[in-house]
Amino acid sequence: MRRFLLTIEYDGGGYIGWQRQDSGLSVQQCLEDAACAITGGRHQTNVYGAGRTDAGVHATGQAAHLDLPNGSANGFDAHKLPLALNAHLPINIRVLRASQVADDFHARFDAIGRAYRYQLYCRRIPSPLLLGRVWHVACELDVAAMQGACERLIGTHDFTSFRAGQCQSKSPIRTMTSLRFEEGEDGHIALIAEAKSFLHHQIRNITGTLVEVGKGKWTADDVSQALEAKSRSAAGPTAPAEGLYLTRVDYPKN
Amino acid sequence: MRRFLLTIEYDGGGYIGWQRQDSGLSVQQCLEDAACAITGGRHQTNVYGAGRTDAGVHATGQAAHLDLPNGSANGFDAHKLPLALNAHLPINIRVLRASQVADDFHARFDAIGRAYRYQLYCRRIPSPLLLGRVWHVACELDVAAMQGACERLIGTHDFTSFRAGQCQSKSPIRTMTSLRFEEGEDGHIALIAEAKSFLHHQIRNITGTLVEVGKGKWTADDVSQALEAKSRSAAGPTAPAEGLYLTRVDYPKN
Repeated sequence: MRRFLLTIEYDGGGYIGWQRQDSGLSVQQCLEDAACAITGGRHQTNVYGAGRTDAGVHATGQAAHLDLPNGSANGFDAHKLPLALNAHLPINIRVLRASQVADDFHARFDAIGRAYRYQLYCRRIPSPLLLGRVWHVACELDVAAMQGACERLIGTHDFTSFRAGQCQSKSPIRTMTSLRFEEGEDGHIALIAEAKSFLHHQIRNITGTLVEVGKGKWTADDVSQALEAKSRSAAGPTAPAEGLYLTRVDYPKN
Repeated sequence: MRRFLLTIEYDGGGYIGWQRQDSGLSVQQCLEDAACAITGGRHQTNVYGAGRTDAGVHATGQAAHLDLPNGSANGFDAHKLPLALNAHLPINIRVLRASQVADDFHARFDAIGRAYRYQLYCRRIPSPLLLGRVWHVACELDVAAMQGACERLIGTHDFTSFRAGQCQSKSPIRTMTSLRFEEGEDGHIALIAEAKSFLHHQIRNITGTLVEVGKGKWTADDVSQALEAKSRSAAGPTAPAEGLYLTRVDYPKN
């Protein structure tokens, strides 16, 4: 067998999320079915993702690994693999790149960094062309104030206040290496978050809280107090899934 | 009656185009039904658009006018009108702004300029997140060469080679006031076209031809020769509808 690392883009809108579940169609299942198809149905292949994105969450740079048989008649190589898999995938999931990796490589456990983008759109009236792609906020936001509040969340903290009740991680401690806003034109605002790993709903809960700051309802001190409270009910609401994008997964350079 | 000018954004993907037709649902029909609904069904209202966008073509700045009764109990005013109409429109059509205009104003005939954007996306593999929003071109394009060819089409010309066979305009003469490319990040390229008015399929046919230049198959001289031939078959293919956006309609300042 040979192990490959894939970079994957998808529109999360039609899926129950990355992870295979009995309750509906997942991105993982689509990839596993495609991998099975390109081996002629001979190998049931597991595909291991770096980030378990929720239902409705998108990816422009999800990473995942899978094993494919050596010396197959199909002659899988890293260059042809994306096209081969894409031929068996729904149009809203595309494998962008593939590279061969070591037999003990693991997309989830070897990742040393993950980057997400949360896309906000501020205008009185929502945009028909951005449905399912952004969180529409019907008022202006004070980006400088939100940027100031980001500082309170950078570094190593107990993020209990910002993780979902159903979060399965043993520790609520995470190190936020970067958290910053990028202001685009015409009401487009993005929050960029980078860390080795994130808790369940962490970015959506942080975004929902920072938007309260942007609206002038909360101050940066309120964000610090919410963090220190170590209680989910102390922080702001959960931002909707559709504005969130997994944009990059980093691995050690060989 | 009072006359209002509307600015409208829509995702053209689900419609047979702007114009009301028996063969399916149009954006115009949705707006006329919404206008009828806000008058309590008492007035069948015509909505006159500035640009008759084709099926699949989007708008971020379509303009249209309509008449609404004076002194209605609903008290239509320009500020409330967008929200009133939006309450009766499908989510993929939104009225962004309204303003009261003179009783003899006409959205189509009074327009002194129209701007369109044609959005290209160049990458080996299409983007699931841009489906129906761009024309995916699977190779790199020479933007400088395309920009050079634009110069051959600016100004007043007989655009017979770039109009659809079914174009109903009496004259094939149009004046292209601006035609230029804007290169964004990561393979995003936009063609901006401005004129008082356009022929049917003119921008899509020009885009299809300029992409041939971008691929190195055509030169700027070939584009000039296609223009001079005054024959549709002399120019390049028609670019798909989904990359085209009507972005702005201009009227004389009062």
